[in-house]
Amino acid sequence: MSNSYGTLFKISTFGESHGPAIGVIIDGCPAGLTIDEAFIQSELDRRKPGQSKITTQRKEDDTFKILSGVFEGVSTGTPIAIVIENQDQRSKDYSHIAEAFRPSHADYTYQAKYGVRDYRGGGRSSARETAARVAAGSIAKMFLRKYSVDISAYVSQVGDIKAPHFSKLDLSKTEDNIVRCPDSDTAEKMISLIDQVRLDRDTIGGVVTCVIKNTPVGLGEPVFDKLHAELGKAMLGINAVKGFEYGSGFEGITLRGSQHNDEFYNDGGNIRTKTNLSGGVQGGISNGEDIYFNVAFKPVATIMQDQDSVDKNGNPVTVSGKGRHDPCVVPRAVPIVEAMAALVLTDFVLRAKSSKV
Amino acid sequence: MSNSYGTLFKISTFGESHGPAIGVIIDGCPAGLTIDEAFIQSELDRRKPGQSKITTQRKEDDTFKILSGVFEGVSTGTPIAIVIENQDQRSKDYSHIAEAFRPSHADYTYQAKYGVRDYRGGGRSSARETAARVAAGSIAKMFLRKYSVDISAYVSQVGDIKAPHFSKLDLSKTEDNIVRCPDSDTAEKMISLIDQVRLDRDTIGGVVTCVIKNTPVGLGEPVFDKLHAELGKAMLGINAVKGFEYGSGFEGITLRGSQHNDEFYNDGGNIRTKTNLSGGVQGGISNGEDIYFNVAFKPVATIMQDQDSVDKNGNPVTVSGKGRHDPCVVPRAVPIVEAMAALVLTDFVLRAKSSKV
Amino acid sequence: MSNSYGTLFKISTFGESHGPAIGVIIDGCPAGLTIDEAFIQSELDRRKPGQSKITTQRKEDDTFKILSGVFEGVSTGTPIAIVIENQDQRSKDYSHIAEAFRPSHADYTYQAKYGVRDYRGGGRSSARETAARVAAGSIAKMFLRKYSVDISAYVSQVGDIKAPHFSKLDLSKTEDNIVRCPDSDTAEKMISLIDQVRLDRDTIGGVVTCVIKNTPVGLGEPVFDKLHAELGKAMLGINAVKGFEYGSGFEGITLRGSQHNDEFYNDGGNIRTKTNLSGGVQGGISNGEDIYFNVAFKPVATIMQDQDSVDKNGNPVTVSGKGRHDPCVVPRAVPIVEAMAALVLTDFVLRAKSSKV
Amino acid sequence: MSNSYGTLFKISTFGESHGPAIGVIIDGCPAGLTIDEAFIQSELDRRKPGQSKITTQRKEDDTFKILSGVFEGVSTGTPIAIVIENQDQRSKDYSHIAEAFRPSHADYTYQAKYGVRDYRGGGRSSARETAARVAAGSIAKMFLRKYSVDISAYVSQVGDIKAPHFSKLDLSKTEDNIVRCPDSDTAEKMISLIDQVRLDRDTIGGVVTCVIKNTPVGLGEPVFDKLHAELGKAMLGINAVKGFEYGSGFEGITLRGSQHNDEFYNDGGNIRTKTNLSGGVQGGISNGEDIYFNVAFKPVATIMQDQDSVDKNGNPVTVSGKGRHDPCVVPRAVPIVEAMAALVLTDFVLRAKSSKV
Repeated sequence: MSNSYGTLFKISTFGESHGPAIGVIIDGCPAGLTIDEAFIQSELDRRKPGQSKITTQRKEDDTFKILSGVFEGVSTGTPIAIVIENQDQRSKDYSHIAEAFRPSHADYTYQAKYGVRDYRGGGRSSARETAARVAAGSIAKMFLRKYSVDISAYVSQVGDIKAPHFSKLDLSKTEDNIVRCPDSDTAEKMISLIDQVRLDRDTIGGVVTCVIKNTPVGLGEPVFDKLHAELGKAMLGINAVKGFEYGSGFEGITLRGSQHNDEFYNDGGNIRTKTNLSGGVQGGISNGEDIYFNVAFKPVATIMQDQDSVDKNGNPVTVSGKGRHDPCVVPRAVPIVEAMAALVLTDFVLRAKSSKV
Repeated sequence: MSNSYGTLFKISTFGESHGPAIGVIIDGCPAGLTIDEAFIQSELDRRKPGQSKITTQRKEDDTFKILSGVFEGVSTGTPIAIVIENQDQRSKDYSHIAEAFRPSHADYTYQAKYGVRDYRGGGRSSARETAARVAAGSIAKMFLRKYSVDISAYVSQVGDIKAPHFSKLDLSKTEDNIVRCPDSDTAEKMISLIDQVRLDRDTIGGVVTCVIKNTPVGLGEPVFDKLHAELGKAMLGINAVKGFEYGSGFEGITLRGSQHNDEFYNDGGNIRTKTNLSGGVQGGISNGEDIYFNVAFKPVATIMQDQDSVDKNGNPVTVSGKGRHDPCVVPRAVPIVEAMAALVLTDFVLRAKSSKV
Repeated sequence: MSNSYGTLFKISTFGESHGPAIGVIIDGCPAGLTIDEAFIQSELDRRKPGQSKITTQRKEDDTFKILSGVFEGVSTGTPIAIVIENQDQRSKDYSHIAEAFRPSHADYTYQAKYGVRDYRGGGRSSARETAARVAAGSIAKMFLRKYSVDISAYVSQVGDIKAPHFSKLDLSKTEDNIVRCPDSDTAEKMISLIDQVRLDRDTIGGVVTCVIKNTPVGLGEPVFDKLHAELGKAMLGINAVKGFEYGSGFEGITLRGSQHNDEFYNDGGNIRTKTNLSGGVQGGISNGEDIYFNVAFKPVATIMQDQDSVDKNGNPVTVSGKGRHDPCVVPRAVPIVEAMAALVLTDFVLRAKSSKV
Repeated sequence: MSNSYGTLFKISTFGESHGPAIGVIIDGCPAGLTIDEAFIQSELDRRKPGQSKITTQRKEDDTFKILSGVFEGVSTGTPIAIVIENQDQRSKDYSHIAEAFRPSHADYTYQAKYGVRDYRGGGRSSARETAARVAAGSIAKMFLRKYSVDISAYVSQVGDIKAPHFSKLDLSKTEDNIVRCPDSDTAEKMISLIDQVRLDRDTIGGVVTCVIKNTPVGLGEPVFDKLHAELGKAMLGINAVKGFEYGSGFEGITLRGSQHNDEFYNDGGNIRTKTNLSGGVQGGISNGEDIYFNVAFKPVATIMQDQDSVDKNGNPVTVSGKGRHDPCVVPRAVPIVEAMAALVLTDFVLRAKSSKV
């Protein structure tokens, strides 16, 4: 069950980086949804490699094919299977790691867990798998449009360069630059830093912030499946993620309750909160205010430098990145964060249908 | 399904703060485990209210009764049901919030989601429910002893007072003081701060850090059910939690890959890493190094001060905490964090049994 | 996961025949349902032992207590926990089987699977566990009333004595006699047969037929979770059941398609079928016609006669039923069949809410 | 969730009869299993149309492609995706039913449930989907070989022609004739009957019996997920199935307990039963004896005769089968029954790994 996510809007992904194809089955998409194939492609294009000088130069068109579940452009309620063929496989690039464990990759743990692994390009542990999530997430976004839910992620930090607070940003400008930071000044600095890191044959970490507007009140389940707990799991399941915080997050620790509490008021018939340190979620359930959260990404593990390691037999080896890799993962992570957020919300919209008799 | 956690070692909790009882069913506990009832009680005692001057003075003995699944002191493989009766209900304390929504509590969202709620003491959203998790977690700990897994949580921050890094602490000293910080100097400062906050009729946030030693290699599932993703979900499901990070966490953002990567070496036949910024998890799977993570708790929402709010009909009201509440939740959260970590690891130990033919 | 049933309206039962209590958690009951405690008791009374001369004389009041999930008589959307204490335990009756395996009971398989078992009264494998299902099913029935769904089970066969086809019966008369067959002539013969079997210190099998009227169109999921497949699983999960058939069932084998097909017609605006060999289910989904199915129960395994067997060490032993047992299980199985049917339908009503956008 | 089956060895199928492809993801196949592609093909060939004069003449090669989860011929523990393209689509054959509801098909219920449907060849409700199950089941069979489990299904009844009891048959002869009945005399009669039915432009029902030898003791879970309950659900999920019985089944009703009970004896150190009316399952758990069960199939709904029906608007129409259909489904159902049985057993083998500490 490790390869499925969701309860009612459930996705199951498959595929390795250098196998014939990757893909996803969406089980539970309600019937009657118009499926916009151009939108799916545009979302995949936001994630695909080779977009700009600060992303990997690996070329994958990431064109997809829908095999089932859609008839005459409309979802039928049956599983929607989407396949993306792997085109630019270049397996030869990876022969050097067939036996060696790359530092801070999943090579060692997969080998230990399974006794066998497809080492080509990281196999199943490759971030290539996230293309399948983006495809599924794009359909979740189509569903959420019916509720006017708006999900906007952007790069808020690269290394120690931080963007202003989201309330001071125009999130419609995220796609205006290659680093996907809506503040152009910050974006420029981020791009310079990433470019320098790339020239240093190194990598750097960053933060993706996500803001969700117009969430219906009442999404999320008490106790274990809290809305923010599922968002957290979904984000922590993305490759290279090391942390998740929502609302006041780690900074909220130093506040007092009298500073942190969000007082309610009546806003022309709607119950609203004066402040929003809760991040739009109270007791695990959405309250209608903006949901916002931060996702921390570590520096990419593949660097173009020699590193000490061992091989399968425990013998010392030297490994170094080859081929084409991202110096910083966050620009391409933006659509992945949005996709996973869309999947979480869609699932909770469907689950909420059974809250009351 | 919102009230269950786990796939093979699955717990389902029930109960409201002021109903007749709370409890838990553990489904999937393997047969043949000796059940140490004294240990269950000792874990519940670490969580129970009224332990010290810095916790709520509410009195609950939290004595439990096993209704099933244990025969002659040994688990039988059938569901273990544990019930804890609610003794000190004092429902009258809560009449003032029957109609009003307390700021930053779950009152409003439950009302909106369900159209009805047991308002007494927060009902299902009360942290009282976590006693059931601690009881279940204590059985998970018994199971993990067979694998020598050692889970130690402690308070690493209260407000802006931080303990030294865990590598400099003697985690066996956590229970030596009432705030559960193993560094006595820091503990003293934390206690003073909490006491001051209490006198101010206010509350304060904090951090619980958890360190897990001797984890078997190979726990965790790729893609969605990564070990750290499940730990994150489990922690974010605890009341008042706002953030989770593991390994280098949010601080890792500013590092470069060449600084962050954990190189492998052969330690007398065992493959180890020289550093451990990965936090014991690579590609979502344990690598045998120490797992460590931080859990951020917001200041408790109930404060002994007047706050603006609205009632069910949207009319303005003033609410203020009454009765007995914690000025800071982290000391009592320590056993809850450990319990949830134990549940996550136990589930993955069982799941790992099917990794290979 | 073996002790839970359902996806959205999910029950988890616990308890052994001679432990302190049995019970059930219902997770997913929508909020706002009025809970009729008298009805729960009346359903439990239909199942309880000691009702008549043809059932076991064991006395259990089967009084229940709701521990959570209901506030001021209404479901709150949180888990409903129901506990039934075991009163008449008489563990001494079972000392003789502590080591021996009773023929056609679960003693041997439990011992082999778990290495340990609560042998008292069959422990977890006792049909006493079904009281928990009946309690949960009674709440499902309350939910289904909102959809006017009517579930009626009755005894249609005991040994070789068969009742007329259900279309010729007045199902409101099922409770008029102790064998729960709505045809009084047949009932009399059945009672005589069971009484004779009892005097012979033996047992006999039978069939429970269930008819469900007013099912909404569209319940059930294609492929694996077909409506009749879930009904089948639910029925086969009842103790002593050996077979399940719906609609034309095993008799339909000999028909030709031209005889078996149910032609559609327009009944004043409603699409109906002229015949109903489909049993109200087509392609796994309800079509609005009556659902009907048969459940075959084997003769109770406990007989008051000496039988050859072996003990835990493989040594030959003679075992014989002691105490108080049912000569025929079907009269008491009627409310259990109804309860499981109610749980299946309720779950599908909730699942159907996500069929369309 | 309607399109997945299994808990630890979990399959998710997708695809419509006349879409681009059908397929399946297997999630949870343990790593290290040698994948025999020729065997997968041979199983698909047993199910494919066009095998003989008594099956549909529709031509589908049913060639498959593995997209993931297998590396150098061995399973890697990651999802195994298998795709089978639809070659012989002939959508034009189905234009006549775009608006009309075929009697005893899923046309009406799908339309009512989803508001939209892919009407071509029955779309998702087509038995074509079972090819995906057979592919997955063939991998389950490879896994079960390691436990020497042997699953043999055969046709035991067509119309009113019955084969002798399975204990009198040589099950290795099932594939010797086109009807898949191991008794050649019976087979001949069955073939004649089916041929006659076909000439009558009609269809006929039948029974598939399945015998499973060498099942390990201890498979199956108590209460809801009993071994026979899962087998029942799996079989009832196959298209056109109306009934399931195991062991003594419906005939066991008329027996007395003293006739029905299976006494234990010590067979050279192994605990065995003298008789096997239990059908190899006691208390829902395998006891090591042969498991056997019957699956009832109704006559195929598509007949080459005019039938009354209605269209989407409720207007009366006449429909008649066109194209190429099976006069009797049971010969091709044999590998499907085996596949589902293999999936059930494999899942329980994996689940049993957690029974004891």
